[in-house]
Amino acid sequence: MKLLRFSTGGAARYGLLEGAEVVALPAETMAEAMACTDANGPRYRLSAITLLNPLPAARLFCIGLNYPKPHPLGGEVKGPANISYFLKHQAALVGPGQALRLPGVSEQFDYECELAVVIGRGGHRIAEADALDHVGGYTILNDGSVRDWQAHSVTAGKNFFESGSIGPWVVTADEVGDWRDLTLCARLNGKVVQDSKAGAMFFGIPALIAYLSAITPLLPGDVIATGSPEGTGATQKPPRFLRSGDALEFEVDAIGVLRNAVG
Amino acid sequence: MKLLRFSTGGAARYGLLEGAEVVALPAETMAEAMACTDANGPRYRLSAITLLNPLPAARLFCIGLNYPKPHPLGGEVKGPANISYFLKHQAALVGPGQALRLPGVSEQFDYECELAVVIGRGGHRIAEADALDHVGGYTILNDGSVRDWQAHSVTAGKNFFESGSIGPWVVTADEVGDWRDLTLCARLNGKVVQDSKAGAMFFGIPALIAYLSAITPLLPGDVIATGSPEGTGATQKPPRFLRSGDALEFEVDAIGVLRNAVG
Repeated sequence: MKLLRFSTGGAARYGLLEGAEVVALPAETMAEAMACTDANGPRYRLSAITLLNPLPAARLFCIGLNYPKPHPLGGEVKGPANISYFLKHQAALVGPGQALRLPGVSEQFDYECELAVVIGRGGHRIAEADALDHVGGYTILNDGSVRDWQAHSVTAGKNFFESGSIGPWVVTADEVGDWRDLTLCARLNGKVVQDSKAGAMFFGIPALIAYLSAITPLLPGDVIATGSPEGTGATQKPPRFLRSGDALEFEVDAIGVLRNAVG
Repeated sequence: MKLLRFSTGGAARYGLLEGAEVVALPAETMAEAMACTDANGPRYRLSAITLLNPLPAARLFCIGLNYPKPHPLGGEVKGPANISYFLKHQAALVGPGQALRLPGVSEQFDYECELAVVIGRGGHRIAEADALDHVGGYTILNDGSVRDWQAHSVTAGKNFFESGSIGPWVVTADEVGDWRDLTLCARLNGKVVQDSKAGAMFFGIPALIAYLSAITPLLPGDVIATGSPEGTGATQKPPRFLRSGDALEFEVDAIGVLRNAVG
């Protein structure tokens, strides 16, 4: 199932995508929408509704340094010794189709295309072997980054107002198959800039869930952004930072395309 | 005014402390309580109510490396070049009087006594000269830290479930005077372990508000924990980490005492 949050002009609602139609669900949160089996609500044309951030109240756990990038010249690809993460506030995100906001105080505004896990069933101290049973679904997250402020502290660079995005919807885990086979592809103004299998992660999704849930209980609806592969603007030669009018498309097969322009 | 959140057995409410009495306020959030002028609600004996986390929905911005510690032998005290911060989830905090939870996966559980600013009036890109006008009040925060996991990433070590605390209440800015004159004092089992003037901070409260609001709009009720002075367990020789049964008292003059035992 593809579960989304949308508006037809009034209040935000949750819905189920069926072909080119959206069925409104009796749900107040994405966790409820993922559990909901009632598809008898009113129906709308997808082309006539506005998609919104599907997880507007989610806690956002963001993994850093989780893909080999840039490739070392010697060819050896070695990950960090430990998982590393930071938190992002919801205020740093916009929904699908909404404009990303330039930071104003920096010229080093960058994109990061990431596969994002949505927790379905919560848990504390989840064993790695059981971790995938706690995944409710997947979506796409643009971990918008301001590189010079990221040098002050990772959190600073990752929390600029409306610098990132999430969506376009949540695809339930049963439709995704093996997460390691998913391909992440980012296009900037139509040109492919990131292209990687999710399976290239140093720490896979089960390890991330086990690690985070050792620290704090994971809750239904929590989001884990799993890190971004090589090809961000900062690693290009010369660096290519985002400018007003740039168009980003992040595609993950089995999920869809998250589109945002820079405002 | 001293504003608190409390329970008499049922739902949590906000209240105003008047001597040894608590007056219930018609407020749903601490930001509302700070703005409320109606003190005609029911009254309770302070000794008969249970104090709760006064800011249970607040975003928690936590400043790192903001006091000289440990004192360098050469005597020169130099701060970092930039402000550094991380985010803490509410799940990492308990209220006044509640037990702190041992991390379970680490023996390096530590305390940090901090002065916490509560934003009264929100704002984006606040000038340093105007910053104190945005302070609604102050409280005390124990930035509970798990030192070996903090070495993986600051966020990991600072977000263990129920590892820190906040309270006992919010004192409005008009009762506090000059924040630089406030004394922070932490006692572990009755022994003073931290004792510093807030004015020893490398980056003062106006600079912190200007910096954070350059990144994202600050909202009423947001909390900025301003960093901890020397004397945490990790910096003692030998290190003295927290154990079950330890009693912490964090006192800031003009605010009060935040007490928590380790469960």
